[in-house]
Amino acid sequence: MNGAHALLDTLILNGVDTCFTNPGTSEMHFVAALDDVPEMRAVLTLFEGVATGAADGYGRMADKPAATLLHLGPGLGNGLANLHNARRARTPLVNIIGNHATYHQALDAPLESDIATIARNVSEWIKETPTVEQVGADATAAIVAAQRGTVATLILPADVSWSEGARVGPHAAHIGILEVAADEIELAAKVLRAGRPAALLLGGGALRADALEAAGRVARATGAKLLCETFPARLERGAGLPTVERLGYLAEFAVAQLQGLEHLVLVGARSPVSFFAYPGQPGVLVPNGCDVVDLVPAGYNAAIALARLADAVDAPAPDAAGPAAERPERPTGALTSESLARAIGATLPDGVIVSDEANTAGLYVTGATAGAARHDWLTLTGGAIGQGMPVATGAAVACPDRPVLNLEADGSAMYTLQSLWTQAREGLDVTTVIFNNRSYAILNLELGRVGAATDGNAADLFDLSQPPLDFVALARGMGVDGVRAETADEVVRALDRAFAEPGPHLIDAILPTGF
Amino acid sequence: MNGAHALLDTLILNGVDTCFTNPGTSEMHFVAALDDVPEMRAVLTLFEGVATGAADGYGRMADKPAATLLHLGPGLGNGLANLHNARRARTPLVNIIGNHATYHQALDAPLESDIATIARNVSEWIKETPTVEQVGADATAAIVAAQRGTVATLILPADVSWSEGARVGPHAAHIGILEVAADEIELAAKVLRAGRPAALLLGGGALRADALEAAGRVARATGAKLLCETFPARLERGAGLPTVERLGYLAEFAVAQLQGLEHLVLVGARSPVSFFAYPGQPGVLVPNGCDVVDLVPAGYNAAIALARLADAVDAPAPDAAGPAAERPERPTGALTSESLARAIGATLPDGVIVSDEANTAGLYVTGATAGAARHDWLTLTGGAIGQGMPVATGAAVACPDRPVLNLEADGSAMYTLQSLWTQAREGLDVTTVIFNNRSYAILNLELGRVGAATDGNAADLFDLSQPPLDFVALARGMGVDGVRAETADEVVRALDRAFAEPGPHLIDAILPTGF
Repeated sequence: MNGAHALLDTLILNGVDTCFTNPGTSEMHFVAALDDVPEMRAVLTLFEGVATGAADGYGRMADKPAATLLHLGPGLGNGLANLHNARRARTPLVNIIGNHATYHQALDAPLESDIATIARNVSEWIKETPTVEQVGADATAAIVAAQRGTVATLILPADVSWSEGARVGPHAAHIGILEVAADEIELAAKVLRAGRPAALLLGGGALRADALEAAGRVARATGAKLLCETFPARLERGAGLPTVERLGYLAEFAVAQLQGLEHLVLVGARSPVSFFAYPGQPGVLVPNGCDVVDLVPAGYNAAIALARLADAVDAPAPDAAGPAAERPERPTGALTSESLARAIGATLPDGVIVSDEANTAGLYVTGATAGAARHDWLTLTGGAIGQGMPVATGAAVACPDRPVLNLEADGSAMYTLQSLWTQAREGLDVTTVIFNNRSYAILNLELGRVGAATDGNAADLFDLSQPPLDFVALARGMGVDGVRAETADEVVRALDRAFAEPGPHLIDAILPTGF
Repeated sequence: MNGAHALLDTLILNGVDTCFTNPGTSEMHFVAALDDVPEMRAVLTLFEGVATGAADGYGRMADKPAATLLHLGPGLGNGLANLHNARRARTPLVNIIGNHATYHQALDAPLESDIATIARNVSEWIKETPTVEQVGADATAAIVAAQRGTVATLILPADVSWSEGARVGPHAAHIGILEVAADEIELAAKVLRAGRPAALLLGGGALRADALEAAGRVARATGAKLLCETFPARLERGAGLPTVERLGYLAEFAVAQLQGLEHLVLVGARSPVSFFAYPGQPGVLVPNGCDVVDLVPAGYNAAIALARLADAVDAPAPDAAGPAAERPERPTGALTSESLARAIGATLPDGVIVSDEANTAGLYVTGATAGAARHDWLTLTGGAIGQGMPVATGAAVACPDRPVLNLEADGSAMYTLQSLWTQAREGLDVTTVIFNNRSYAILNLELGRVGAATDGNAADLFDLSQPPLDFVALARGMGVDGVRAETADEVVRALDRAFAEPGPHLIDAILPTGF
């Protein structure tokens, strides 16, 4: 058995059965081995940023890693931004990079580069397999590392891939659940029972339904506020779940949300800092004098901790039935970011997975969908734009029975638009709504906020209107059915149709310029 | 004066007057300062890989650096593949990356990453400017480093950019010309005069007209063969210039070209190695027993060395008039990669700049254009695909009075297709020909060559036909006029029209599948 075959067998043995790829010559034996391992689903992307973002979306929804297969340093470079987002999301991901044959690397051929160094920015676990005998063991080690919520990078030289003598790696023992110690729960309960102004800041696993229900019990029993990190990897929302306020992206909003708190209990979230620095503004958002308790660090089980915390504060069990779903009316008339949000709230299908990269134009969507039926919300965890479309793609691969809705800003869409082709090729049920305001609107906002507003034409650099982007044509070019919508009525009709029909759809929602 | 303003002034003072960018919040003061420094032309791209590739194309044609302006680690990651190509091309390039404010970096905000580590793979010179007082001096140092033919990466924290107290950096002294020592020229001359089978392998500056003419004199006087590196950054070609054979991409072709040589004289080129390793094949391509002389290392002046070498071998002066231009007839009938090549050779405008990323489908173009009027040929120097369209874009910015022809494989086109929008926005005279064979054809070839051919469906991963890509729709979506061509006659008509009209055009040339 050659190295490539053993790697594939080890992945399958450990439940890693999906690989997002754009391969090259150094990955040819991996590609050939796919014929012998039909259990592996290989999903072709036209650009590595789509592959890595799709693996992120898959991992968030499947709760197990997908693999990537990338071509040398440049392939990894192309995928780096979405691996950065995956790292921030703590997504399990086995990141496989083909390299030149071991003996070829010293020749400094044109594609030679230092792959491990590039990977260091996104990977806590990196290994280049030196001999074919080690392939299986290294693959298992990578999977174990990935399961801890990291991007594990396995670099596979071509000769290790093609040489015979490989062995399949062992089955990875499942990682035990890390539990928060009882005295730490008790300490937090004591703080909350004191009745001083307090909030739970929820992130990671604390944003799944069971954990949220427990957090809701804590909040009802103690009056603590429920906040959620600004950019959650996966937030379960909708009817029956307690409402959690996402911490604002703009520091001044976040400061207002945190104002007056005396205790902040972190549950799977990090202590809040501002996204960017601004002249004269603080980067740390916790109010002076507010005590921060890191109750559930990353990797620890949040649902168990929150359930015990709820018991510790003598919270009653949750109501059998939470509040019923509530939708906005279908809007009519002019299309604005506000009416677009209501159109989405009015048509949102049950069980939808929302990949949200609508940025500034998406401001109203959170409110308009808060009362919808149960759904998942995936966001831009690392701030590197070009994530929404790949994440939607990977989520649809992970959950073929659920509809996926991708809320996508026009500027961000143009980063990894190639996602549409993979959606068409795989027949994925993804509805993409382009929030088309012909602008990097957030930068207009930020230009003023950093105190750099000018009376000149520098802001032309945020203008996407010359020429305007025609997303219907772009979608058609990649085999995806698209429709342009200029009124709220048109958007509602287009959403209804897209949700009713299988396969990918795109709606180019034309908003007022710059909003 | 704030840091951003001083940086811009220092760039302009040193002749760096073009910046390819996709900025973010940490670059807002640089953007604002553009209003005060109208000499700087800022060119917006929709993706950083377009910005870095355009800066590469610009530098190759302008013989001076352009600047980039990229947003943090993820922006650099998105641009990394084309910086890799620029590094291999030895293109002068000032790579500016905005970073978080110095005091914000320790907070590990979502976009925080280790920028210098990412840059290390493509940059010999890297500096993060720690204080506003140093901005000017660091900018000059970056320009000096870039002028040596490197990617110089200057990392600019937001607070350094916005703080007052900056000084404009000094004017960079021009780099002296490095000349090859006389005794080394004499040694090479002696080798060549001996009349044993020999070749000059030309690269870098040896591929400009004056150097090529001198190389031609040497070849005529000594019988030495003229070879050229496989992927030159910029090769001057056409009527009146000696024909140089590009070393084959496939190792077996290169081996045949080098077979029987007893002496190989390197002039601005590196000793040849195979692009990839193949089981049982050698990576070093120089025949056993062939003596290799590195006459002109990178950075040394090739034209002067070759002129002296020509004198040293008593070569007569070149003919006043070289051979006249010679074109193939305009083809008619079926469109194949061969008739497409003749169509290009028949219509090629004088003084055109060709950005060539046609890959396998472009095999015949070299021959069909060898006798054309004088032109420049830019190739995929580092093997990281997605370079051709950005390089064409940057070349057109550098040379507004010359037409640019971009020969582009369909698979590679989809990497950085956003280039078309910048071409439309800037009104650049670029004609893009898509060699549309609906396939990663080179990988079908490589699958067999690495000994990994299969009888299964792994090769589906090289199939781009489901769904087919409609490049006319894709171009229209970005404001570029496109036309589909299915016969040789249609391609000829489309080329004539594209070359006659200003502004960008795209021709979707439909080739037989997989060729």
